[in-house]
Amino acid sequence: MNELRAVAERAREAARTLAALPAETKNRALRSMADALEAHKGAILAANREDVEEARARGQTPSLLDRLMLNEARVAAMARGLRDVAELPDPVGEVVEAYERPNGLRVQRVRVPLGVIGMIYEARPNATADAAGLCLKSGNAAILRGGSEALRSNRAIVDALRRALDGAGVPQDAIQLVENPDRALVDEMLQLVGLIDLIIPRGGEGLIQRVRQNAKVPVLAHAKGVCHVYVDADADVEKATKICVNAKVQRPGVCNAMETLLVHERIAPLFLPKAAEALREKGVELRGCPKARALVPDVQPATEADWEAEYLDLVLAIRVVSSPEEALEHIARYGSRHTDAIVTENPQTAQEFLRRVDSSAVMWNASTRFNDGGELGLGAEIGISTTKLHAYGPMGLRELTVPKFLVSGDGHVRE
Amino acid sequence: MNELRAVAERAREAARTLAALPAETKNRALRSMADALEAHKGAILAANREDVEEARARGQTPSLLDRLMLNEARVAAMARGLRDVAELPDPVGEVVEAYERPNGLRVQRVRVPLGVIGMIYEARPNATADAAGLCLKSGNAAILRGGSEALRSNRAIVDALRRALDGAGVPQDAIQLVENPDRALVDEMLQLVGLIDLIIPRGGEGLIQRVRQNAKVPVLAHAKGVCHVYVDADADVEKATKICVNAKVQRPGVCNAMETLLVHERIAPLFLPKAAEALREKGVELRGCPKARALVPDVQPATEADWEAEYLDLVLAIRVVSSPEEALEHIARYGSRHTDAIVTENPQTAQEFLRRVDSSAVMWNASTRFNDGGELGLGAEIGISTTKLHAYGPMGLRELTVPKFLVSGDGHVRE
Repeated sequence: MNELRAVAERAREAARTLAALPAETKNRALRSMADALEAHKGAILAANREDVEEARARGQTPSLLDRLMLNEARVAAMARGLRDVAELPDPVGEVVEAYERPNGLRVQRVRVPLGVIGMIYEARPNATADAAGLCLKSGNAAILRGGSEALRSNRAIVDALRRALDGAGVPQDAIQLVENPDRALVDEMLQLVGLIDLIIPRGGEGLIQRVRQNAKVPVLAHAKGVCHVYVDADADVEKATKICVNAKVQRPGVCNAMETLLVHERIAPLFLPKAAEALREKGVELRGCPKARALVPDVQPATEADWEAEYLDLVLAIRVVSSPEEALEHIARYGSRHTDAIVTENPQTAQEFLRRVDSSAVMWNASTRFNDGGELGLGAEIGISTTKLHAYGPMGLRELTVPKFLVSGDGHVRE
Repeated sequence: MNELRAVAERAREAARTLAALPAETKNRALRSMADALEAHKGAILAANREDVEEARARGQTPSLLDRLMLNEARVAAMARGLRDVAELPDPVGEVVEAYERPNGLRVQRVRVPLGVIGMIYEARPNATADAAGLCLKSGNAAILRGGSEALRSNRAIVDALRRALDGAGVPQDAIQLVENPDRALVDEMLQLVGLIDLIIPRGGEGLIQRVRQNAKVPVLAHAKGVCHVYVDADADVEKATKICVNAKVQRPGVCNAMETLLVHERIAPLFLPKAAEALREKGVELRGCPKARALVPDVQPATEADWEAEYLDLVLAIRVVSSPEEALEHIARYGSRHTDAIVTENPQTAQEFLRRVDSSAVMWNASTRFNDGGELGLGAEIGISTTKLHAYGPMGLRELTVPKFLVSGDGHVRE
């Protein structure tokens, strides 16, 4: 506990300096960090090879090995990411509102950093550079706790980043890595109220639930993404097919991929066989309700578990509904407040769906895959939140700040 | 647990309906609620008399009895409060941002209610009507857990409010009172992740800490208000005196009252004797550092505990500092991120102070007492947050909502 508390206290101290840094200093530091990653590429790749060898020896899955592995291109992408963040506008100091009260008091709401942000994440070492960059740009100190499989890689990356800070007039403790692989340390991190202002966990549902269950520090995250596409009676069949294929297969392992397809019964006979063919062509396994199975051959029956499932794989649950209302009911019951879409040419139906679906992003005639900080114009994202507090949806630089009130008077007192 | 879970499930169901209600329906309900308080005034005052008698018999303090007691004027004020909230703009549906992406996707961020809000508060029964009104207007279902001393009063108030909802087309379970006085129920409320979206505790530091320590549901609150006024070397002595007297004595028992006065050593010989006289005239007891004591007779020595104290009383700690920097250090160390003020005619010093003090509201030449939702133009407030997440400072109707993303395309898919 003392080890982690010391880390957090150094972070808090660094955060005070960071909060007051001008944008130019932070941008210079970000560019130095990018340069440092390239300069220390050899050490980073060597450390990563050791991580990958150990993971392979331990029999880790190919998908974990893929996420863990770095190469020249991935290091270059990390560096480019940092340079991109340097180009984004600084959210700190942004005036959100400014007005004068009837008594002459002038009120401003101005963005300030949150303070100290704890990141808890799994195997991907490139998350280390991404998170460090976004925290630094938004004036926050970062405490990084990556997966133990990536410890050597993360250490090499953070080493390079901290060296760059030193030369750029930024306290090194703006970026700290928790190296101790003891899992209990994560639980201790979650207790540091007053020292850590926000925890952002990224990873599988198990990690997120564990963090949520144990945290006393505020947490923003999404536990899972059970995303729906509802193809309405008034849908354009071609658009609907294109959107469904994209939402399911463009990258099936991510949180904003479609997991359940809801189809209005009036369009189902026309749409479903066509969509099923296109999806199967891409290798998607279909599971359906009785009505869907009656329209498409060889569809396995969907059970209750299918409606709740986040497959993260080439599997799709299909349900035929008799009204938009029934689609809304299904989403309210089984959805995860992440991303849901409607395909329709009827603006009334679309507006009603957009208004009533309680998800962080609701799409009309667009793929669920667009719920992403980059795609929605936030510049970069540190995660997606389905907690309805502070940030709902992708979190960019602004979401790592909060407005404080600045009030100016001329000797004003309250009567 | 089952009892409370049932309450929360009914609230969640009501919240779905509430989220879709037009402003007119909610405003009509708020006016009916005000009418109902007046119509059931007799029953409310009778219930309150029983609460007050019991509290008196139990030897409760005069200040608790005062907060507990209702009379005709206080019931009228509750009704007026509800009518005022009906007049405020509806935050739900407010478009926070709207833009088009280079690929033609149209993005809107539109405010939606948080969902279900749990209020945990102490003796004041008027908080019941205030919280119910703000939650309803912002489209949230409210679960109210008032102090056990006020149980009969709260029951009578909530009875009246729910009757009004029934006739106004709003589900009665939009407002529910947890009547069971068992303290364990509060702890159970704090565990209902997924059913309650936000807990707002209001009361003494003990209550807030207990809620923070045990909550798994997100919590917004301020634990205490150790507010500072820093009188700079370049202060106008008259303004400074007026502000200090107002910040300390206008209502000493509230969270935005000044608790510590910091004075620049260059102005202290001129300012402190004058200010001390004005404060003492109002009955304020002074405790000071050695330099302050050298300038003002009969000041008790301040100890470390005084710098940390939230007196909520006519007591003031005074410290002479040798620079604005030292004042900033003191506030960073002992402050509570609530409200701090600078008095100076030097705009550079003021701007530096406003920028660097990390508090929910920072005042320049104005009393700390202005950190209040009404005074800052939020219309009404449900509490003040010093958590640097979601809301920092007073929380009004907007702070009971969050923007979701609405994205419209024309068959857009991600490449």
